[in-house]
Amino acid sequence: MKIITPLKPGATLGIVAPAGPPKPGQLERVPALIEAQGFRAKVFPGCAGPAHLDYLAASDEQRLADLHAAFADPEVDALLCLRGGYGCHRLLHRLDTALIRRHPKLLIGYSDITALHGVLDTLGLPALHAPMPTSDLLHPLAGPDTETLFGLLKSGIGRGDLIAPASEPHELSRGDSAEGRLIGGNLAVFAALAGTPWLPDARGTLLFLEDIGEEPYRIDRMLAQLRLAGVLDAAAGFLVGSFSDADYPAAQLTDYLSGLGKPILAGWPSGHCRPNQPLSMGLKVRMDVAARRLEVI
Amino acid sequence: MKIITPLKPGATLGIVAPAGPPKPGQLERVPALIEAQGFRAKVFPGCAGPAHLDYLAASDEQRLADLHAAFADPEVDALLCLRGGYGCHRLLHRLDTALIRRHPKLLIGYSDITALHGVLDTLGLPALHAPMPTSDLLHPLAGPDTETLFGLLKSGIGRGDLIAPASEPHELSRGDSAEGRLIGGNLAVFAALAGTPWLPDARGTLLFLEDIGEEPYRIDRMLAQLRLAGVLDAAAGFLVGSFSDADYPAAQLTDYLSGLGKPILAGWPSGHCRPNQPLSMGLKVRMDVAARRLEVI
Repeated sequence: MKIITPLKPGATLGIVAPAGPPKPGQLERVPALIEAQGFRAKVFPGCAGPAHLDYLAASDEQRLADLHAAFADPEVDALLCLRGGYGCHRLLHRLDTALIRRHPKLLIGYSDITALHGVLDTLGLPALHAPMPTSDLLHPLAGPDTETLFGLLKSGIGRGDLIAPASEPHELSRGDSAEGRLIGGNLAVFAALAGTPWLPDARGTLLFLEDIGEEPYRIDRMLAQLRLAGVLDAAAGFLVGSFSDADYPAAQLTDYLSGLGKPILAGWPSGHCRPNQPLSMGLKVRMDVAARRLEVI
Repeated sequence: MKIITPLKPGATLGIVAPAGPPKPGQLERVPALIEAQGFRAKVFPGCAGPAHLDYLAASDEQRLADLHAAFADPEVDALLCLRGGYGCHRLLHRLDTALIRRHPKLLIGYSDITALHGVLDTLGLPALHAPMPTSDLLHPLAGPDTETLFGLLKSGIGRGDLIAPASEPHELSRGDSAEGRLIGGNLAVFAALAGTPWLPDARGTLLFLEDIGEEPYRIDRMLAQLRLAGVLDAAAGFLVGSFSDADYPAAQLTDYLSGLGKPILAGWPSGHCRPNQPLSMGLKVRMDVAARRLEVI
């Protein structure tokens, strides 16, 4: 009995771009990528632009309409976000959550997509923090990530499943084990949910955090916001993913997390890194620090 | 009858550094700057370091102890922050607000100090958004800013006072006039108060926003957070200050603010700019868009 049901061969992935635009020539390569894995791709119009404000794949209206259409479309089995960037936050106040509740589907993505994962978590729906086509899967070295992601989609996820292979040891890891619903994602995007209706209820959760290109002093303020919002105190443990393209914020993670007396599993290979191991957000997970593994429970 | 009482000649300014450290050679010049205006400077120990994590003037304990000591010190008439940077958010969960209530004093600063202004506003205390010694007043071209700030401290602020001279016309300005308590400050720092106990209640306020070095896509997410937190809907009007050292976020300010049907006075000369006109945060102000002026009411 799977919690996230397997996708059958020939299932259709709805390709949506709720945040940034693809680079020239990328979008055309996405359907073949999906078809090579035995699935079909239904590309929603906003993926093709016209881009808005340089950093948005299309207008807010188009990106929002695509999201709603993909959730409602009986042909679409799951939504795969083309890429992250910026822009999901702009849509949240107009998301038709009743429509999403009527048509619950797996939404796959990470980075800026963390904002949508926050909405889905608040609605009680799982989501997949996982590589996306133009950010990851089209990269020449993304073969293993592609296999992992599509393998997971084909097998589904159920209790007892290990949701990623063991990570490397890390100096920030501490404690024994913790259990809780997996929430979080990109730290900047997640912190920007504070004070909104879409910040997941952090009580008893495992909080996953990753980021890219954010200087330590920015990470500092984001963690401060989460502490002041009660999130760090409420969580049962912390899963620390990749922090890339800036100085590693070891002192900041230590200052905010290490003193709380909660288990921390750091160096987890998810985020803006390769491999970028999928994480089943919204599912209850057991984190074993010494064995460096996560298990759906 | 002044709401912010004038400082008498010889009054003492407590110099504190709740955020970043001074550059070498700057701190030594501050007392003479204050004394040249007829006041005394009492420099609290954390201003002299040792710096922590490169971007904090001193340890959290020292910066916090200095803030508490300066509020409690009977010799200190007002607090002048040495500079902004980063670090105020780290202190907020340990601020002794009962002590501050017992010893209410004017706190002068801006940028990262916006976090402390948020606390003071929530406590019902006014504050001064104004130039700081090492960021502004030591600069060779800061003479007019120095005169304005110290002139204001000597005269105090009361009803009917214009709190800054008329600003230049600006294409984002619209509407007629609005009245409300002045809140806000640095957009990044203010948005990072969302979800915390220290985000000012925005109902019926005039929201002032400025920033430096934040790319438009970041401004976008900050404004989205404030919209989702209900701040933009709650405010009665918007005072838009300087947005410097990055592309001017005209499209973002338009997208989030212009459609709300509320008065906007843009191009206001406060923030990371010269002149950086002082603003009396927490006081009720009337904003006249056509005349481009603010009046304490």
